[in-house]
Amino acid sequence: MNKYLSIIIGIFNCIVLSNFSVKAQNPNVVLIFMDDLGYGDLSCTGALDYQTPNLDKMAREGMLFTNFLATQAVCSASRAAILTGCYPNRIGISGALMPTSEKGLHPDEITIAEMLKQKGYATGIFGKWHLGHHKEFLPRQHGFDEFVGLPYSNDMWPVGYDGSSASQAQRKNQYPFLPLIENDAKIGEVKTLEDQANLITLYTERAVGFIKKNKKKSFFLYLPHSMPHVPIAVSEKFKGKSKVGLFGDLMMEIDWSIGQIIQALKDAGVEKNTLVIFTSDNGPWLNFGNHAGSSGGFREGKGTTYEGGHRVPTIMSWKGTTKPGLVCNQLVTTLDILPTIAKVCGAQLPKNKIDGLDFTSILKGNVNIPVRDTFYYYYRRNSLEAVRLGNWKLVYPHEGRTYENQLPGADGFPGPAPENTPVPLGLYNLSRDPAERYNVYDQHPDIVAAINKAAEVARLNLGDDLTKTIGQNIRQCGIKK
Amino acid sequence: MNKYLSIIIGIFNCIVLSNFSVKAQNPNVVLIFMDDLGYGDLSCTGALDYQTPNLDKMAREGMLFTNFLATQAVCSASRAAILTGCYPNRIGISGALMPTSEKGLHPDEITIAEMLKQKGYATGIFGKWHLGHHKEFLPRQHGFDEFVGLPYSNDMWPVGYDGSSASQAQRKNQYPFLPLIENDAKIGEVKTLEDQANLITLYTERAVGFIKKNKKKSFFLYLPHSMPHVPIAVSEKFKGKSKVGLFGDLMMEIDWSIGQIIQALKDAGVEKNTLVIFTSDNGPWLNFGNHAGSSGGFREGKGTTYEGGHRVPTIMSWKGTTKPGLVCNQLVTTLDILPTIAKVCGAQLPKNKIDGLDFTSILKGNVNIPVRDTFYYYYRRNSLEAVRLGNWKLVYPHEGRTYENQLPGADGFPGPAPENTPVPLGLYNLSRDPAERYNVYDQHPDIVAAINKAAEVARLNLGDDLTKTIGQNIRQCGIKK
Repeated sequence: MNKYLSIIIGIFNCIVLSNFSVKAQNPNVVLIFMDDLGYGDLSCTGALDYQTPNLDKMAREGMLFTNFLATQAVCSASRAAILTGCYPNRIGISGALMPTSEKGLHPDEITIAEMLKQKGYATGIFGKWHLGHHKEFLPRQHGFDEFVGLPYSNDMWPVGYDGSSASQAQRKNQYPFLPLIENDAKIGEVKTLEDQANLITLYTERAVGFIKKNKKKSFFLYLPHSMPHVPIAVSEKFKGKSKVGLFGDLMMEIDWSIGQIIQALKDAGVEKNTLVIFTSDNGPWLNFGNHAGSSGGFREGKGTTYEGGHRVPTIMSWKGTTKPGLVCNQLVTTLDILPTIAKVCGAQLPKNKIDGLDFTSILKGNVNIPVRDTFYYYYRRNSLEAVRLGNWKLVYPHEGRTYENQLPGADGFPGPAPENTPVPLGLYNLSRDPAERYNVYDQHPDIVAAINKAAEVARLNLGDDLTKTIGQNIRQCGIKK
Repeated sequence: MNKYLSIIIGIFNCIVLSNFSVKAQNPNVVLIFMDDLGYGDLSCTGALDYQTPNLDKMAREGMLFTNFLATQAVCSASRAAILTGCYPNRIGISGALMPTSEKGLHPDEITIAEMLKQKGYATGIFGKWHLGHHKEFLPRQHGFDEFVGLPYSNDMWPVGYDGSSASQAQRKNQYPFLPLIENDAKIGEVKTLEDQANLITLYTERAVGFIKKNKKKSFFLYLPHSMPHVPIAVSEKFKGKSKVGLFGDLMMEIDWSIGQIIQALKDAGVEKNTLVIFTSDNGPWLNFGNHAGSSGGFREGKGTTYEGGHRVPTIMSWKGTTKPGLVCNQLVTTLDILPTIAKVCGAQLPKNKIDGLDFTSILKGNVNIPVRDTFYYYYRRNSLEAVRLGNWKLVYPHEGRTYENQLPGADGFPGPAPENTPVPLGLYNLSRDPAERYNVYDQHPDIVAAINKAAEVARLNLGDDLTKTIGQNIRQCGIKK
């Protein structure tokens, strides 16, 4: 028996030691950030006409977050928030940067990539950047070793949303074709919908290659897909696959991409040492009708501070750490990603003030203990349009975009979405009324008072154009020299 | 080694034979039917302020149905449909039967219990019946061996919704205290909110006892809980447990009840041979505010033919058969429960025409193949208010209940919910617009024409008060002799 015993001990040691060597390495992080994906666009969150089996599987093996907010309901601002843990107005970013813009993320701001770089992480971004397209603002200047992708949104080109060369919006004629960038250099141009159709495959292949290459190191992979932002397009292998039209085909291709990433982590043997986060930059661009996603019943969509603009489908998975199938209904936001990654990876937080809160306790299963009780819905340059206190939400009167009472467009032709519709004062109890239909302002003066108090703090700190308050604690974006 | 080998073979035989004996037995069915539970009332479907871990677990180990409809958005009609597989107007049932009613489910109609009785099943109902409270209509006359519960809704008593003896609605003074019935005899009365608070425990204990007693037979357990229908109340052990008020406490108690049932199946060793179905009779009674659930963002609620009235949170689990965590987004309805159970249990369908369709293919994992393409939203006596064709929904102009633009009530005091509000003609694409906000009638004349054609078939068959069409193929309810 002694011989057998020593073999068994040997095997045991191998297992323990190999596990130990894995555990000693800091966890990898994969952050998948969709563009304009609505809350209701996965089958596990209510999509009716196609299936997203890889994402559903990720949700049942990981955690589904049902109360997770993008920080601002528009592209550049949202990306600034997730990468820095700051309200975008704190760091001088607002709206969506244009191809004509001279601005970008300030060199002094610390992104997740920069934070992890200090811990020796390999860092890569494959997808859409949109925090300044001039060289001094590009990902390589913000902590990423590698970048392949677009500098801004995929509709910022001289082509119509339906792929026609006769642009639907005159504005678009100002723009050049979309530059495809590798590291700091332009390596090609996206000129047609066929070119757009290759983007998901391109990003996915590069991401998979990055995982393979870095499997023996700790790595941070950021995969900000350009779609389902319009114009939408799918590669040959997904054309007609959903049988319900282009958007369904696209969602199947997106789901395929996520499946490839998960498989690559498995193949590399790093699944147990990798936190995977899947979320979206804002809700769906609803006036694009059948070329847009669904808010899943939440009110309004992208570019609004109702929940349809902010509530995004979010799944996190960390095999062996997250409890399979657990649902997190605590308020968590994209602000909280950076400090959580800092904690998970043992990295130092940026020295400048940030707004995110560490939610590793939730990842470890403590879903009954809230991490965040307040959230500020800023929009436009710097308007505090709404405030969350727990699951209560107070909307301040403002002018905003609306999709309601408008006919949605179709096949790439947008319907109207007026930008200056009066939005009334309203208090909503999101626990009972997720769709913000029942204004209970008059019934809860105590809640209104508590929220107003919280709002005052935000205004003093971050400012508010609606009340013409200058924030005391804000920084500036980068300006091209 | 021969001695050991024979022991191993012996153990193996035991396992194989015991498994075989289980498989030879027809599957058990547990049907859990909630009252006024809204789509958004589970944490896995979006509830924000409490957790429902047992139901979430059932969803991730079984199947979540995201496109599942109650057949009619009101109590008796909905119960008639789930138990017979018929549109309630086909069998002469409409609305909610009152304590003064002389009607009931016709003796010739075949319920799931009667159907399974012919296969030798043990059958039990523990909860609310509401298909006729006179003896000739009670469950024992419709195939159930055992009944413990209430004959109708828990608010049909001379007590206010808040438990006060001064009734909020004069109407309620007409009613006696709620009779608690065992089999055909009254065994007690529910007189106070404290009495109501015991109902969940009572039903649960009886259901668990039924499982224990019948574990060696095939059985059909029907557990139609009286709550979260108002007046709501919880037992001592759940008072204050959610820390978010009575509705949260109640949902925790309901979740506990489901956990007890699942555990009892496990303890009895019959989990693998039992199909468990969890669903609700209609959406939430929204004007009860903090005493009502949430439609999860769907439009309107109970008593309306918008999705908030019909879309109900539904989970099915059949260990070893349903694929863990699969999401079914195909249109399925409570009409389809009876024929599916018939197929699963090898029972004979009723001879009279039914409306349900067998969806065992979906339970076996074929979630990409639709089973049903059409559904008729009947309400009031016999009004065809809306029609589904796939995920398109055409709403016909009618007068209906509305909760929108009304202040919800609180703490048992209902807010207004006008019953005769004009509901306009509208076509909705539920795939992109789950909340029925964007009327695209003018954009899709082809879809409108197809739905109108389907509606014509329904009218000829089942009638329609809105167009004053008499149905050619309807039967009568039972009338007390």
